[in-house]
Amino acid sequence: MKIKIINPNTSTDMTRSIGAAARRYARPETEIVTVSPERGPITIEDHYDEVLAAVGAMEEVKKGLSEGFDGYIIACFGDTGLYACRELAEAPVVGIAEASFLMACMLGYKFSILSILSRFKTAMEDLVKGYGLESRCTSVRCTDVAVLDFEKDKKKAKDALLKAGRKAIEEDGAEVLCLGCAGMLELDEELEKELKVPVIDPVAAAVKMIEGIIDYGKKTSKISTFQPPVIKEIKGYPKTLQL
Amino acid sequence: MKIKIINPNTSTDMTRSIGAAARRYARPETEIVTVSPERGPITIEDHYDEVLAAVGAMEEVKKGLSEGFDGYIIACFGDTGLYACRELAEAPVVGIAEASFLMACMLGYKFSILSILSRFKTAMEDLVKGYGLESRCTSVRCTDVAVLDFEKDKKKAKDALLKAGRKAIEEDGAEVLCLGCAGMLELDEELEKELKVPVIDPVAAAVKMIEGIIDYGKKTSKISTFQPPVIKEIKGYPKTLQL
Amino acid sequence: MKIKIINPNTSTDMTRSIGAAARRYARPETEIVTVSPERGPITIEDHYDEVLAAVGAMEEVKKGLSEGFDGYIIACFGDTGLYACRELAEAPVVGIAEASFLMACMLGYKFSILSILSRFKTAMEDLVKGYGLESRCTSVRCTDVAVLDFEKDKKKAKDALLKAGRKAIEEDGAEVLCLGCAGMLELDEELEKELKVPVIDPVAAAVKMIEGIIDYGKKTSKISTFQPPVIKEIKGYPKTLQL
Amino acid sequence: MKIKIINPNTSTDMTRSIGAAARRYARPETEIVTVSPERGPITIEDHYDEVLAAVGAMEEVKKGLSEGFDGYIIACFGDTGLYACRELAEAPVVGIAEASFLMACMLGYKFSILSILSRFKTAMEDLVKGYGLESRCTSVRCTDVAVLDFEKDKKKAKDALLKAGRKAIEEDGAEVLCLGCAGMLELDEELEKELKVPVIDPVAAAVKMIEGIIDYGKKTSKISTFQPPVIKEIKGYPKTLQL
Amino acid sequence: MKIKIINPNTSTDMTRSIGAAARRYARPETEIVTVSPERGPITIEDHYDEVLAAVGAMEEVKKGLSEGFDGYIIACFGDTGLYACRELAEAPVVGIAEASFLMACMLGYKFSILSILSRFKTAMEDLVKGYGLESRCTSVRCTDVAVLDFEKDKKKAKDALLKAGRKAIEEDGAEVLCLGCAGMLELDEELEKELKVPVIDPVAAAVKMIEGIIDYGKKTSKISTFQPPVIKEIKGYPKTLQL
Amino acid sequence: MKIKIINPNTSTDMTRSIGAAARRYARPETEIVTVSPERGPITIEDHYDEVLAAVGAMEEVKKGLSEGFDGYIIACFGDTGLYACRELAEAPVVGIAEASFLMACMLGYKFSILSILSRFKTAMEDLVKGYGLESRCTSVRCTDVAVLDFEKDKKKAKDALLKAGRKAIEEDGAEVLCLGCAGMLELDEELEKELKVPVIDPVAAAVKMIEGIIDYGKKTSKISTFQPPVIKEIKGYPKTLQL
Repeated sequence: MKIKIINPNTSTDMTRSIGAAARRYARPETEIVTVSPERGPITIEDHYDEVLAAVGAMEEVKKGLSEGFDGYIIACFGDTGLYACRELAEAPVVGIAEASFLMACMLGYKFSILSILSRFKTAMEDLVKGYGLESRCTSVRCTDVAVLDFEKDKKKAKDALLKAGRKAIEEDGAEVLCLGCAGMLELDEELEKELKVPVIDPVAAAVKMIEGIIDYGKKTSKISTFQPPVIKEIKGYPKTLQL
Repeated sequence: MKIKIINPNTSTDMTRSIGAAARRYARPETEIVTVSPERGPITIEDHYDEVLAAVGAMEEVKKGLSEGFDGYIIACFGDTGLYACRELAEAPVVGIAEASFLMACMLGYKFSILSILSRFKTAMEDLVKGYGLESRCTSVRCTDVAVLDFEKDKKKAKDALLKAGRKAIEEDGAEVLCLGCAGMLELDEELEKELKVPVIDPVAAAVKMIEGIIDYGKKTSKISTFQPPVIKEIKGYPKTLQL
Repeated sequence: MKIKIINPNTSTDMTRSIGAAARRYARPETEIVTVSPERGPITIEDHYDEVLAAVGAMEEVKKGLSEGFDGYIIACFGDTGLYACRELAEAPVVGIAEASFLMACMLGYKFSILSILSRFKTAMEDLVKGYGLESRCTSVRCTDVAVLDFEKDKKKAKDALLKAGRKAIEEDGAEVLCLGCAGMLELDEELEKELKVPVIDPVAAAVKMIEGIIDYGKKTSKISTFQPPVIKEIKGYPKTLQL
Repeated sequence: MKIKIINPNTSTDMTRSIGAAARRYARPETEIVTVSPERGPITIEDHYDEVLAAVGAMEEVKKGLSEGFDGYIIACFGDTGLYACRELAEAPVVGIAEASFLMACMLGYKFSILSILSRFKTAMEDLVKGYGLESRCTSVRCTDVAVLDFEKDKKKAKDALLKAGRKAIEEDGAEVLCLGCAGMLELDEELEKELKVPVIDPVAAAVKMIEGIIDYGKKTSKISTFQPPVIKEIKGYPKTLQL
Repeated sequence: MKIKIINPNTSTDMTRSIGAAARRYARPETEIVTVSPERGPITIEDHYDEVLAAVGAMEEVKKGLSEGFDGYIIACFGDTGLYACRELAEAPVVGIAEASFLMACMLGYKFSILSILSRFKTAMEDLVKGYGLESRCTSVRCTDVAVLDFEKDKKKAKDALLKAGRKAIEEDGAEVLCLGCAGMLELDEELEKELKVPVIDPVAAAVKMIEGIIDYGKKTSKISTFQPPVIKEIKGYPKTLQL
Repeated sequence: MKIKIINPNTSTDMTRSIGAAARRYARPETEIVTVSPERGPITIEDHYDEVLAAVGAMEEVKKGLSEGFDGYIIACFGDTGLYACRELAEAPVVGIAEASFLMACMLGYKFSILSILSRFKTAMEDLVKGYGLESRCTSVRCTDVAVLDFEKDKKKAKDALLKAGRKAIEEDGAEVLCLGCAGMLELDEELEKELKVPVIDPVAAAVKMIEGIIDYGKKTSKISTFQPPVIKEIKGYPKTLQL
């Protein structure tokens, strides 16, 4: 089985971390290919970034169509461009936020999201609402550490997440925590050891989910929401984005 | 007052219709500028189109920042890229779907959306849910006429909408109808005459809403969700999209 | 365009303030007529007051039918008697609470209501739920200053609202604030200056909303919920309330 | 135990029917007093009627305060003025719609309302939503027989209700039916015999509910929503409505 | 009228307390029979206990079918096995939690549950959601006193409940409190005296509710959800549980 | 990896089918052990059956604790006793309904449940609501074929499901179908071929979900809802159910 994991931002460092996290939990026979798109922002921290990054994610799924992939993972916690990507492929496409929420639902009754930037709170709540999981997600707890700082100062990142996680457990009744960012290698295990609740690395969750879906032979439903995009004139975009 | 109306697709015919509809209802002293972006699909019929079109909409708002606009309207019924555009400007940014829903709420208790393509049903429901209006929107009724055919065969378009509108009224209890497409010049009045309920042209609704907001001097809240985008490296996009 | 603004309580001082607020934001060509009813309580602070005041509001809409008004505003933050008034007129009828909520929805994702009396909290929540906006309204924050004291001690009123507003922003994530009372002239601007988020005077919002609706030529849907009242015997009420 | 049942409309015929229904199911030791107010519409068929009738209901609760009643029932299916009446009394006040919904919840999972006029559909849905029971109420099924015709042509009324009830059961999955009108003496039993599901006369339900509440010695909570009305100047209303 | 109250746990002490509470509020002519099942846990503190106790409750309802009961009460605040018991009998079956919630709805707008163990919080929230009352229940406040300790140290129990009740009122806006446990004899009155809001003993509420239902002659709807169990082979259970 | 699949009913035929379905999709290295409990009903068709079957399921999880299992699957579409079983084990416990719903969420926007008996409709809706997925599940479509008849007449079963599935797709907008019964070997593939949407065998979904969870090393959260059952006196149950 061959899975393409698309980090929708252009930070190749983060792509490497995502790849490492994915391979750590993938089954030996699963081939993981990790990419970041040619175009897009170096991190995704607002709606503006998200749109630009979605284009890159779509481009990578399109390229993937001729590369024999069995499934795709969108590896940004906003599930950037997920529905558009799902239209492009017949193979399943899984978002890492979505996957982590769904796995959390099987491990406890209420989960919380540990997000990085507080301005993302509404976007996270919106995402959860879009998936219909608002009664399962008890809170979005935010640290205020910039995305790239997470890479630089792992200790500070971990401390901020520990603090947010404790509040989620004690004040919001969280039973499971979803790490709201890709590329937080091994942080799930470290937090889990201290907080004594399951802590989900969304990349790991997405890998396990898509392995299961592919094993079972299921593909995206093409009957309405995710029909292939209609072929038409598209101006000002490179050939790789023409249908 | 100077308003920039952005048709996020690249059909200049539709941009002209949107402009005509907007000017028909704008106050005499309101200056309407209508554009379609340089880049993007010629119509917006799926999530894929929507992402590509959102980039164009963002680009046009960015350009507008130095052109002295008092407000922006995103003139596609998916409110394409609305939240990203709202981050870019201090001036208010209104989506035509949003505006039509909110106006409908003041004219009757339940409204329906008359949408064109049935594959858009879920996207429409999602949009309504994102705005929190699911208890006010009683149905999304779809015709199955392609977007560009609406331009070509006005008679067929009108008949399809009349049929969908009647079902919305009789079977779903709709009291107000929102036309789910931009550029349907005068169709609101024609349908209203036959169906005896308010029929809202979303472009008209958006023009009236933003005129009111600008008159009152209100601007987008910049405290959390719609903070300006964070400045960062963005690869593979033209200068017009760099922050 | 000629708009009748009905202050459903019998405080002529408040009616004057409402008129001043309305004229401050109305367009020059909009003619504003402000009235308080002959019958009703001097302030509206509970459900009992609200019923008595609704009768007065209805009476004023009825009178208005022969006075050539293009629209009506119910200028009490409980939207007192709004649905009954909507039945009476063909012209649009807008409640100030409703108008402020809907405008808030276009300026930020989450809004809070700054209400005066804490016993009104449930009534406010109920109002929001009736409009289906519970996912957009993040909190109702109450001061405990009596309605008429607001008139007397503007400084104390402002301080109480500032405190409540700050809590709404910091603890509840409010991005826009709706002032939950009519007649708070200029308070919106003063609070906005200090709190750095849009603060909406509901009278101003209602004026802008109804100007837009009238401009666009839309009227209340008469197909079901807001059909005209059925003519029948009504005992014990003056002629002005007979149908 | 002495209960005052207030028929908020001024039809003394209906008041008599309500009294008969109430006495039929009241316990022998329960004293039932039935009144219609001096002021108000002869039937309640729209929001306009409802406001006028609420005043009458309030007046009757106020009178009751010195007449030694242990509880009050508002006997109109819109629960007209219920919250205002609850403010007035320390003794419990029960609405017949509310009581029928709550009893239905103990007899089956989903209930439907059999309402008379189709224009009441939204008002009924709003009432159910206000009580938070939208997931238990599967439909509001309407006949289109005018309220007073129900009195005149019992056969026609019954047939219309049978038809609506059957649809509720077969198409909406209703397991219990709430008769959406007061004064439908014995109709509950007749419909129940034919439809084979519990059919609730709302007056009967309210009598049983309030008997239970009074027996248990419970009174309305006065801590916030239903605090007594604030004493103040009230213009244009008779002495019986002054606080 | 003859009512069987089933304490689903096997603590005969608690059964005695439940009986005392029930008789305290039952009408003189109501015959109360209180039992605990032969099989089951001595207290119900988790889902595991709940399943085992549900079997006992079912067994007691089955026995009751030949003993001439007019109704059944499931006297554990989890409403253990309620829906299964409702399938067995034609006579009404009421859960004490359900009854207390529904009575609370008529006494105030928002109620809170005072529960014992904090691990029950989710189960309580789930119960409330199952009944569709999530918008009426403002919080589940937990003490952390073990169920059997409530019997032993009444003073400590009362203090813990007072503290939880105060928080529910002051922080969550509760207007009515439901005691989340059976067998708390007289505690409702004591708490009510100090907290100044209605405090509901769920056993008392259930007795009043079922007396009302039986008086009115209503029975469980047998049309779908609560049809009698299908007769079939059942292995490993005693004769008393065979259908 | 060693997984215990518990068919909570006592039909060994069905247990065999479940085992076959599970092994068909399990990875080669996954060891599947399938059991039915010693005690319980031969099929699960009502709430009564469900309680009796839950005891058996719990017993089998308890036994499993000393048998070295890495995870448990509850293989009845009501997820019988799931929360109680989750309390018992540290290893993950997955219900087949839950697993099928969550997988459906990644393959399309709206799913429908194809259930067997129409009396199960409410129970299914309740299950979906308990998981918080009501906005994703567009309908529960029921055939009226008895559970054991499914085994006997595969052709009739398939036709009934095809018909229900078609309605779900055409009338309710379902994009994915969840088969609402265990032991329907190969039916997923046959239906999928004809209906052109993903059809999920819940046993297959559960196997893939739990393989993923175990691979990732996650276990049930023990911090609140699913803490181990409290040890206590349990009467009338065999030793295998004592804690």
